[in-house]
Amino acid sequence: MTSSAAARTALELTADLPVPDLEDFYRDLHRHPELSFQEHRTAARLVERLEAAGFETAEGIGRTGVAGLLRNGDGPTVLLRADMDALPVEERTGLPYASKTPGVMHACGHDLHVTWLAGAAKALADGRDAWSGTLLLVGQPAEEAGGGAAAMVGDGLYDRFPRPDVLLGQHAVPGPAGLYPHVPGLIMSATTDVEIVVHGRGGHGSRPETTVDPVVTAAYIVTRLQTVVSREIRPRESAVLTVGRIEAGTAPNIIPSTARISLNLRTQSEAVRERMIAAIRRIAQGECHAAGCPREPEVTLGGSFPATVNDPETDHRIAAVHREVFGTDTVFDSGPAMASEDFSKLALGELPYSYWFVTCTPATTWDAAPGADLLEKFDAVPSNHSPHFAPDLSTVAPGVRTLVSGALAMLG
Amino acid sequence: MTSSAAARTALELTADLPVPDLEDFYRDLHRHPELSFQEHRTAARLVERLEAAGFETAEGIGRTGVAGLLRNGDGPTVLLRADMDALPVEERTGLPYASKTPGVMHACGHDLHVTWLAGAAKALADGRDAWSGTLLLVGQPAEEAGGGAAAMVGDGLYDRFPRPDVLLGQHAVPGPAGLYPHVPGLIMSATTDVEIVVHGRGGHGSRPETTVDPVVTAAYIVTRLQTVVSREIRPRESAVLTVGRIEAGTAPNIIPSTARISLNLRTQSEAVRERMIAAIRRIAQGECHAAGCPREPEVTLGGSFPATVNDPETDHRIAAVHREVFGTDTVFDSGPAMASEDFSKLALGELPYSYWFVTCTPATTWDAAPGADLLEKFDAVPSNHSPHFAPDLSTVAPGVRTLVSGALAMLG
Amino acid sequence: MTSSAAARTALELTADLPVPDLEDFYRDLHRHPELSFQEHRTAARLVERLEAAGFETAEGIGRTGVAGLLRNGDGPTVLLRADMDALPVEERTGLPYASKTPGVMHACGHDLHVTWLAGAAKALADGRDAWSGTLLLVGQPAEEAGGGAAAMVGDGLYDRFPRPDVLLGQHAVPGPAGLYPHVPGLIMSATTDVEIVVHGRGGHGSRPETTVDPVVTAAYIVTRLQTVVSREIRPRESAVLTVGRIEAGTAPNIIPSTARISLNLRTQSEAVRERMIAAIRRIAQGECHAAGCPREPEVTLGGSFPATVNDPETDHRIAAVHREVFGTDTVFDSGPAMASEDFSKLALGELPYSYWFVTCTPATTWDAAPGADLLEKFDAVPSNHSPHFAPDLSTVAPGVRTLVSGALAMLG
Amino acid sequence: MTSSAAARTALELTADLPVPDLEDFYRDLHRHPELSFQEHRTAARLVERLEAAGFETAEGIGRTGVAGLLRNGDGPTVLLRADMDALPVEERTGLPYASKTPGVMHACGHDLHVTWLAGAAKALADGRDAWSGTLLLVGQPAEEAGGGAAAMVGDGLYDRFPRPDVLLGQHAVPGPAGLYPHVPGLIMSATTDVEIVVHGRGGHGSRPETTVDPVVTAAYIVTRLQTVVSREIRPRESAVLTVGRIEAGTAPNIIPSTARISLNLRTQSEAVRERMIAAIRRIAQGECHAAGCPREPEVTLGGSFPATVNDPETDHRIAAVHREVFGTDTVFDSGPAMASEDFSKLALGELPYSYWFVTCTPATTWDAAPGADLLEKFDAVPSNHSPHFAPDLSTVAPGVRTLVSGALAMLG
Repeated sequence: MTSSAAARTALELTADLPVPDLEDFYRDLHRHPELSFQEHRTAARLVERLEAAGFETAEGIGRTGVAGLLRNGDGPTVLLRADMDALPVEERTGLPYASKTPGVMHACGHDLHVTWLAGAAKALADGRDAWSGTLLLVGQPAEEAGGGAAAMVGDGLYDRFPRPDVLLGQHAVPGPAGLYPHVPGLIMSATTDVEIVVHGRGGHGSRPETTVDPVVTAAYIVTRLQTVVSREIRPRESAVLTVGRIEAGTAPNIIPSTARISLNLRTQSEAVRERMIAAIRRIAQGECHAAGCPREPEVTLGGSFPATVNDPETDHRIAAVHREVFGTDTVFDSGPAMASEDFSKLALGELPYSYWFVTCTPATTWDAAPGADLLEKFDAVPSNHSPHFAPDLSTVAPGVRTLVSGALAMLG
Repeated sequence: MTSSAAARTALELTADLPVPDLEDFYRDLHRHPELSFQEHRTAARLVERLEAAGFETAEGIGRTGVAGLLRNGDGPTVLLRADMDALPVEERTGLPYASKTPGVMHACGHDLHVTWLAGAAKALADGRDAWSGTLLLVGQPAEEAGGGAAAMVGDGLYDRFPRPDVLLGQHAVPGPAGLYPHVPGLIMSATTDVEIVVHGRGGHGSRPETTVDPVVTAAYIVTRLQTVVSREIRPRESAVLTVGRIEAGTAPNIIPSTARISLNLRTQSEAVRERMIAAIRRIAQGECHAAGCPREPEVTLGGSFPATVNDPETDHRIAAVHREVFGTDTVFDSGPAMASEDFSKLALGELPYSYWFVTCTPATTWDAAPGADLLEKFDAVPSNHSPHFAPDLSTVAPGVRTLVSGALAMLG
Repeated sequence: MTSSAAARTALELTADLPVPDLEDFYRDLHRHPELSFQEHRTAARLVERLEAAGFETAEGIGRTGVAGLLRNGDGPTVLLRADMDALPVEERTGLPYASKTPGVMHACGHDLHVTWLAGAAKALADGRDAWSGTLLLVGQPAEEAGGGAAAMVGDGLYDRFPRPDVLLGQHAVPGPAGLYPHVPGLIMSATTDVEIVVHGRGGHGSRPETTVDPVVTAAYIVTRLQTVVSREIRPRESAVLTVGRIEAGTAPNIIPSTARISLNLRTQSEAVRERMIAAIRRIAQGECHAAGCPREPEVTLGGSFPATVNDPETDHRIAAVHREVFGTDTVFDSGPAMASEDFSKLALGELPYSYWFVTCTPATTWDAAPGADLLEKFDAVPSNHSPHFAPDLSTVAPGVRTLVSGALAMLG
Repeated sequence: MTSSAAARTALELTADLPVPDLEDFYRDLHRHPELSFQEHRTAARLVERLEAAGFETAEGIGRTGVAGLLRNGDGPTVLLRADMDALPVEERTGLPYASKTPGVMHACGHDLHVTWLAGAAKALADGRDAWSGTLLLVGQPAEEAGGGAAAMVGDGLYDRFPRPDVLLGQHAVPGPAGLYPHVPGLIMSATTDVEIVVHGRGGHGSRPETTVDPVVTAAYIVTRLQTVVSREIRPRESAVLTVGRIEAGTAPNIIPSTARISLNLRTQSEAVRERMIAAIRRIAQGECHAAGCPREPEVTLGGSFPATVNDPETDHRIAAVHREVFGTDTVFDSGPAMASEDFSKLALGELPYSYWFVTCTPATTWDAAPGADLLEKFDAVPSNHSPHFAPDLSTVAPGVRTLVSGALAMLG
C-alpha cells in the first residue's frame, strides 16, 4: 500500500479504538509484572485478546512466547512484535496501578508494548476488508534477560507459522509524548554482559593481613574500569561500560573469599567491543595481581545482542506513513541509541525490519523537568529501567496507530 | 585453691577423659552448624550433656542460650562460658565431618568451645568431691552476630541463677597446637559495625548520564576508606577497618538506586574509634558529593562490643595454673588481639574475669606453612572465619583441662 | 578562479618546487624548536623566506608573530596561516635532525606548517602573473600554549595589514601520507584548561595522622575524574578530559601542603563543556571534603579555544580543488576531531575560513603499524604531541600544493 | 660522673649561658637555611663558635661536615652530634626571622640543634676544670636527604679524630616545651625511600585512546598503595607508607610518557620492611598491567636508615641525669617514634649511644591547640617538616643543659 493509502486506512481503522478498555488492560499488566521467561499471566492475557480478535494462536513458544496468526488473502507476511517481560526493579512511581509484586516492575514499558499489540490486533482484524496478506503477531518473552527471541526461533516459530517477509517493532522511550524517532540504519547498539569473579583469600575481618581482600580488590576494579571509556575508546565512538551489580561478603566482620562484578557493555562496532573486552580482562588481571590474589580472576562473557540495524528502505516507508498519520514534525532521525534489543534475532540475520521509538513522557513531567534544551530535559526525566518510569496513558492510542499504519504500509 | 593444688587436682580429674566420645560430639556439632540465635540443635546437645553430668539446666535464655548449675557446698560461684553459633561461610576444609548445611560453617571454633565445656562439665561433676563452691556453665548464643551475652543477661540469667564471683572463657586460635596465650589486661579489641547506604539515581545501564551511579560511588568509597587506617590513625595505634560486605544492583544492565556497604572497625581506644567513625562519615559524604548524589548517604552504627579487659589478678592466677598443667613455656603474653568478643557483657562491666586463647592449628599444617618465623607462619595458616579453618582434634582434651584447672583455681 | 583553473594553475606553479631546499629548511626548523612566544629564530627564518619571495614583512606582531603581504592587483584578500611554536616534549624519534634543545620538540608538526607556508610564498609570488588579489601570509606564535592568534589580532594585525576576505589553514596529522581530510562544518573541538589546587596540611612523612595528605587526595581526584566521561556525558557526545600534569611534593619524606593538577577538556558543545566543568568542581570539592582538607580546593579555568567551524561553502571550494590536484579519493570527510586550534581567533568570529588536515605518517611506519583497519592503525602510529611524532618528508611538496591551490581557488 | 654530680655540675656550668647571643645565633641560622650537603654557611658559623670556645676544628668532612675536638685529660671520648641541614619547604610561620631563601626552611629544627651544640661547646669548654676526658662535637650534614653521617665516617672522621666511647644526640619535637622523652631501646624507626617510574605512551591530550596514560596510572597506584598499611600489615605493627612526591607532565594538553612517584617507608622490623617493598612492587606491576603499559614500571630502592636503638644502660644514665636537672616528671618513655635518623651510622653498628627528644612547642600554641588530651593536641600542633614548625625560643637554654649534663654523666 502506498504510504498515503496506508495512513488514510489506518486512521479509519483506529478511529473508534476502545481506549478505556485498552487502558484497563495496560493497568492490569502494569500491576502484574513478570520476570523474563515467567510471563505466564501476561501471555495468557495477550492470547485472550488475540483470540477474541480472531487470530489463531499458540502459547509456550520459546517457553513463554505467544504467536497469533491471521491469514487474509494474498500478500506479504508481516510480523508485529511486542516484548512482554518486566524487570527486577522495586517500583517507586506511586501510581495507583503500581506493581503488586515486590521487587518486580514494568520499568521498561513492555506492558505498553503488549497493549499496543493487542489494540492493533483488534483494529487490523476488524478492518480486514481493507487489506490483504498475512499478519503474524508475536508476544516475545525475555527481552530483558536476553534469549527470548532466539528461544522462539529455536522452538520452531517459523516452522509452526509462516516466515515473515518483513518485521516491525517499537519501543516506548523518554521524550515528550507524541514523537516517533526513526533511524534508517543502526538504531540500537550491541550489548554484551561480562561477569568478573575475583578470587581472594577469606578470613576474619580483624586480621586483614592474613587475607587477600576481594571486596577491596573488586572496588578498585570498578574504579579502574572507568578508564576504559574515559581513556581507551576514541571519543567519537559511542560506548558504555556499566557495572550494574557488585556483590561480595555476607557479614561486616568476615572477609569473604570471592567478589562478583556484573557489567554490561554497549557498543556500535565489533572493534570497539573487542577492545573493551580486552581492556576489562587486562584490568581485572592487573588489579588481582596488585592485590596478590592466589588465583587469576575469571572474566566470562554472558548474554549479548547484536546491534539493531534497520533496513533503510523498509524504515523509510514506515517513517513516511508515520509522518502522514502524525504530522511531519513528529518523525525525525534521532541517531543510534545506546540501548539494545534482541528483536533482530527474529529477523534471522537476513529479513528486513523497521524498529522505531515512541516517546511517552507525560507532558507535565516533561514540562517540569529542569534543563535548557531537549537533551537536558531528556536526561532529567525518568528513563527506561528507572523505578520512576511511568509512560503517559495518552500514548495508548498512538502506539496502536503506529503499528496499524506500519503494517498496512507493508501489506497489500 | 592454690595453683599447684588446682593443677594437681585437674590432672587427676581429667586423667580418664572420654576423648573418643568428645571427638564424636565435636564432629557432630561441626557437621551441623547453626547461625546466631538459631542454635536450637546445638543447645539441645549441650543440655543433654549437662544433665547427664548432673547439672540443673535451663534452655531458651536469651532466645537460644543454655545454663547449667551445680551447687557443691560453700565457696565462690564460677561461671564457665562457651559460645555456640556458627558463621555464614561456605566450608572448604574438605574434612569428612564438614558442614552439611550449605553456606554455614563452624569457622570460628565455637563447636570446639562447646565440646570443651561439655567435657569440663562431666569432669568437674564427676570429681565434685575434690572441690567446693558453685559452678554455672553457660552455652551462649549469637557471639558472632553479637547480642547473645546481652540477651542472656537481659533475659534474667542472673535472676534465675546465682550471680558469679568470677567468669572464665577461652577461644580457639591459630598457632601450633599446645599454647595458651594469656594477657593480664586488654586482650581483645572493641568492635563496631557501620553500615553505609549510598543513594544514587537508578536508570538504564546504557544511559549512565541520566543516572547517579551508586555502584561506582560505593566502589570509590571503599577505596577511599583505605586511607582511614593508612593516613589518619597514629601508626602505633592498632586499628582495623574492614569492608566485609558490599551489595548493589540486581542485573548487569540496570543501574540501581542504592548501594550498601557493611564495615567493621576494631579499635583499642575510644578516641581512635571516634576518629574512625568521623572519618567514615566524612568520606561517605565527600564521595556522595563528588558523585552528585541526590541525597546524603546514611551512615549507621550497628552492633558493637567493648574491649575485653582481663582482671589482672584473676588472669595471673589462671595463667599460673595453666603453666603448672601444661608447662611454663606454653603460656605467654601475646599482647592484645584485634579480635572482639561479647564475653565481657556477661561480666556486667564489674565482675572480674579471665579470657585466654588455646592454639589449635594441626602440627602438619603449621609445619608446612611458609614463613621464616612464628608470625609469618601465623599469617599463613587458616585463621578464624576462614573457610579452611580446621582445629586439630588433639586440642579436645587440653581445652577441657584449661577449663577444669582454671575453675579449680577459683573454687574452694 | 574555478576549481579546475585553480588546480591546473597550482600544478604549474608548483611543478618546479625547490624540494631539497625546503627539506633543509624543514630539518633546520626541526632541530631548533622554540616554545610558545619564544619563536624568535623561527620567525626570523620565515621572514627571510618571505622577503626573498618579495613579500613586505613585519615581525614582532603579538610578541613573536610574523606577517607577509603581497599586493597583486584587484581581487580578494586571502590569509594563509602557519603556526610556529614547539612543545615541551623530549624528542625520542632518533632522527638525525632531532631537536638540539633538551626538553623541547616540534612534536606537533608546526615546523612542517612553516615550511609549507614558505614554499607557497615563493610559488605564489613567482607565479603572480597567474592570479590577482592580495596575499597575507601569517606565521603565528603560541598556538600550543594558546593566545598567539588573539595576540596578533590584539597587536593590530588588521590595522597594519588588510583584513582578509577568507582565511586558510592546515595541519599535519597521523594517517598514511597523501590524504586531505576536509569537514564542511565543525572540524575541531573546543578546548579548555582547568587547574585544580588541593590544599592539605603538610607535615613529616612519618606522621601522616597529623596531616591532611594532598598527594593522596590529588590521586583520588584523578581517578574520580575518570567518571566524568565514563558516567556523566551522553555516549554519543565526543568529549575528553585529560589530566596532563600532576605535581606535588619535593621529597619522599615530606607531606606537602598542596598538590596541583592541570587538566584539559575537549568538547563539541557548550552544554557539555559546562556540565564537565560543573562535574570537575563537584568532584574536587567532594574529594577534598572526604580528605578533611582545611580549605576548599581552587578550581580555575585557564586558556580556552572555541571550536573550529569551517564555512561550508568555502570548505567545499577548497575540498573541490584539492580533489582535482590530488585525486578524488584523497579527500574525504573525517568528521570532527577532538583536537583544538586558535586559528578561528584570526577570523574574528565572522570571517569565513577553511581548515583542513594533511596526513603525514611515513608509509613504512604506517604499513608496519599493527591493526586490522585504518582506525586501529591510526591509533597505533605516533600522534601529534608524541615524542615519536615524525612526519614524512614526502609531504613537503604536497603541503605546498594544498596551500597554493587553495589560495588560487579563492583569488581572482 | 654520677648522675647527681653530673646534674649539679651541669647546672653550675650553664648558670650564666649567653642566652640572647644564642638566640641571635639561632635566628641567623633560621633565616639562612641550607639544603643537604650545601650547609657551607651553617658549617662556617658553627666552626667559628667551636674555635672561639677553644676546640680544634675541621671542616669539609663528608663534604660539608664539621668536627671539633677538645682533649681534657684522661677519660672517655664522648661525641655530641647536631645535624645541620634544612628542607625544601616554603616557610609559612610568618616569623620575623623566617627563611630568606625561597622554598627552603629549617622545618625540622636542625638550626636549634646547632645552636644547642654551640652553647654546649662553650659551656663545657669554659668549665673544663670540672671534668676530664675528650669531647668530640660533630656538625653533621645531610640528615634529611640521608647520607650525611655515612659520608663523614667514610671521609675518615674517626681517622682524623678519636673514635668515641659513647655518642649523644637529641632532636626537637612537638610537645609542650619542657619535656625530655627517652626510650631505652628502639626510639626511631627505619626509613626507606622508594622511587616508582611508570612508563606509559605519550601523545596528544585530545587523543587518549592512542596513548597509555601514565598520569592516570600513577594516580591509581597512589590510591592502591593505601592498602599496604590498611590491609597487609598486622595492625599491631607500626608502619607508614607516604607518597611524598608525584610528578608527571608538563602541560595540560600533553599526555606524558612517564610519571614518577617518590615514597618513603617507616618500619620497625626487617620483615615488615620486606613485606612492604614486595607489596609496592606487586602493586606497581599490577597497575601498569591494568593500564596496558608498554614496559614494566621501575621500582628502585633509594636512601635508607636503620632503626635508631639506644643502648639501654647508656640511655638510663642520661635519662637519670635529665631527671635530676629538669625534674622527675619531665622525663618519660614515649615509646618508639615513626621518625628516622642516620645518627646511628655514626655509631658504626657497635658503639653505644643515647638519643632523646626535646619538646619545643610554644606554650601559647600548645594551649590553643584543639584536643581533649595530650595525643590529640600533639597531632594538632605543627610537626616537624610542617611549613608552620616554629620551636619556642625558651628551649634554647634547656637544650644546652641536656647536652652538657648528658656529656658530664659519661665523662670523668
